[in-house]
Amino acid sequence: SNTLSIAVLPGDGIGTEVTAATLAVLEPLAKRHGLGLAYEQLRAGAFCYRDTGTAMSEETFDKAAKADAILLGAMGWPEIRAADGTEIAPQLDLRFRLNLYAGVRPFRALPGVPVALADPRARDIDLVIVRESTEGLFFSRDRGTVTHDMAEETLRITRGTTERLARFSFDLARRRAERRGRKGTVTLVDKANVFRAFAFMRGIFAEVAAGYPDVAHGAHYVDAMALDLVRKPWAFDVLPTENMFGDILSDLGAGLVGGMGFAPSADIGDTHAVFQPAHGTAPDIAGQGLANPTATILSAAMMLDWLAGKGAGQAYADAAAELDAAVDAAFADGLRTPDIGGRDGTAAAARAVAERIGR
Amino acid sequence: SNTLSIAVLPGDGIGTEVTAATLAVLEPLAKRHGLGLAYEQLRAGAFCYRDTGTAMSEETFDKAAKADAILLGAMGWPEIRAADGTEIAPQLDLRFRLNLYAGVRPFRALPGVPVALADPRARDIDLVIVRESTEGLFFSRDRGTVTHDMAEETLRITRGTTERLARFSFDLARRRAERRGRKGTVTLVDKANVFRAFAFMRGIFAEVAAGYPDVAHGAHYVDAMALDLVRKPWAFDVLPTENMFGDILSDLGAGLVGGMGFAPSADIGDTHAVFQPAHGTAPDIAGQGLANPTATILSAAMMLDWLAGKGAGQAYADAAAELDAAVDAAFADGLRTPDIGGRDGTAAAARAVAERIGR
Ligand SMILES: CC(C)[C@H](C(=O)O)[C@@H](O)C(=O)O
Ligand SMILES: CC(C)[C@H](C(=O)O)[C@@H](O)C(=O)O
Repeated sequence: SNTLSIAVLPGDGIGTEVTAATLAVLEPLAKRHGLGLAYEQLRAGAFCYRDTGTAMSEETFDKAAKADAILLGAMGWPEIRAADGTEIAPQLDLRFRLNLYAGVRPFRALPGVPVALADPRARDIDLVIVRESTEGLFFSRDRGTVTHDMAEETLRITRGTTERLARFSFDLARRRAERRGRKGTVTLVDKANVFRAFAFMRGIFAEVAAGYPDVAHGAHYVDAMALDLVRKPWAFDVLPTENMFGDILSDLGAGLVGGMGFAPSADIGDTHAVFQPAHGTAPDIAGQGLANPTATILSAAMMLDWLAGKGAGQAYADAAAELDAAVDAAFADGLRTPDIGGRDGTAAAARAVAERIGR
Repeated sequence: SNTLSIAVLPGDGIGTEVTAATLAVLEPLAKRHGLGLAYEQLRAGAFCYRDTGTAMSEETFDKAAKADAILLGAMGWPEIRAADGTEIAPQLDLRFRLNLYAGVRPFRALPGVPVALADPRARDIDLVIVRESTEGLFFSRDRGTVTHDMAEETLRITRGTTERLARFSFDLARRRAERRGRKGTVTLVDKANVFRAFAFMRGIFAEVAAGYPDVAHGAHYVDAMALDLVRKPWAFDVLPTENMFGDILSDLGAGLVGGMGFAPSADIGDTHAVFQPAHGTAPDIAGQGLANPTATILSAAMMLDWLAGKGAGQAYADAAAELDAAVDAAFADGLRTPDIGGRDGTAAAARAVAERIGR
């Protein structure tokens, strides 16, 4: 049987804890579905930077780039910073260097997990933000100019990346429509009423949309979307957007469904992909076994599904679906992590999910 | 007695309706408090652009600039656009040309108005976003460069404006602390972990903060703030931020307290100020008498309070407080506008507030 190589970068803080918990859950899953997963643990992040002077060595980058997929914990640490005051975030370098333009961030209310909104329809939230992850305002990372009196950053949007982002979003909406048995909708989130770059983006989306007559297509200003994500998040499906907007809206989305502990993500390009929880390293609870591993476990499910799409075989898609279902079942049966007021720490949560595999 | 001149720019769509309703409420209030307010109605906006070729004539701008304060309805219309596809938004020109750097957007849960969050503490929401309104990403408005393959915009942050924004925010927190009887807190919202321009902004805020030992001071990444505004908005006080971030977060804030119909705003500079609801022209309900005028009425209260601070006298501050209280009382007594599922249209809402003046 084929073996797939997974580069595992646990990173800093709770990154290491949620990664270990996820690997523990993957073990029975891989056995049951006959998946051949070979892990290579690699070091990168803020503490790596402190100890070695580089956040991610070229050797580590090469190994990660050669793997079939990359599973990442979380990186960064408040007290460890680059010379210009910004954070050590090699996960951003991976996005840029591997051209992972589609930051896929799904939000779903898990059974039993409290949602933020009072409206009961909030339990029906099932949307995906697709955050463009290689340009937009983040094009300017490491490129900002600062004088004594002024600082400037550049927001860049290119036709090529926007076309790819649009096609990715429409393809995703189509796949989701099949699974959910209803028509998909792509709603571009921009600020085309004020900025030419976003009018440009909107135009490109409209061109691509023409090739997907089976998918509904709209556009929304980012401020209005921030409002609507509070008022009627259940009304949305696939929401592609610029990098900075996606960063903001995806934390908002996480807040709706229980917080960052429930927010998986995948940074996907044409050839590579990184899977990681949307949360950070949580210095306040690091090392205490309290971190909720759900976001990382769900990210691993996204990884298996993506590998299936890349030809790894149906077993990977089945395993992904079973892993999602096991997480749902664990929470439906009463699993309560500390971030939602419960007492089940990292290991207990992983155990609860693992136990529900193969039932 | 002194007469103050108010330039009134009703604008487009429901802008004209909520402005008329607000002037109707100001009438008994002015009488009762002996305010000398002289209104000059001026035309500007999308329909003005369609009919005359200019969204706001120089003559109108001059008159508005000479007035003691500017009261604005809402401007813009989907089908009427500038040549580059962006919206007709002379309210943005006023912000830039009059140097109205502080976009003050308070959020408070009014008695009886449903809030979005399930947590009962959401009724204690009482925060103010101070959106820098003359630079940031909006510096790039009309300046974006677009070729066939690429579009770019520039985000600019200057020391001078940031210092003024910081002082404004700390002064505001100090005034609010006096009124509320507890220590004020200024939390800058930025993205200093990734962008030098925001590290620059954070540094300037820290310098200014040193002069306000009585006010607590912190900083928060914008993505984390989007999450926290969903998880614990009651924990925040004054939130200064960059222009684009403030645009997004203030719609989110409105969503928390009942929607845009409850979101007043003031665009304030060192010499001029514009007061307007945060909502748009709402083409879908325009002309039907359904618009909620609350945001505009509360904006007018902010105007009276600002005029008091500019030396108009205590009567203006008293009138502002009474107007706020009348709005609260009207909703506490059962006023329900259509945007929150009620049947009280624009005129009925204005009447309900006006009736509670002088009680
Ligand atoms: C840690 C930070 C640099 C990162 C980002 O801004 O992209 C994070 O917020 C995310 O959403 O992945
Ligand atoms: C109408 C639009 C141009 C405006 C803005 O983006 O500033 C509005 O959203 C606001 O918040 O005042």
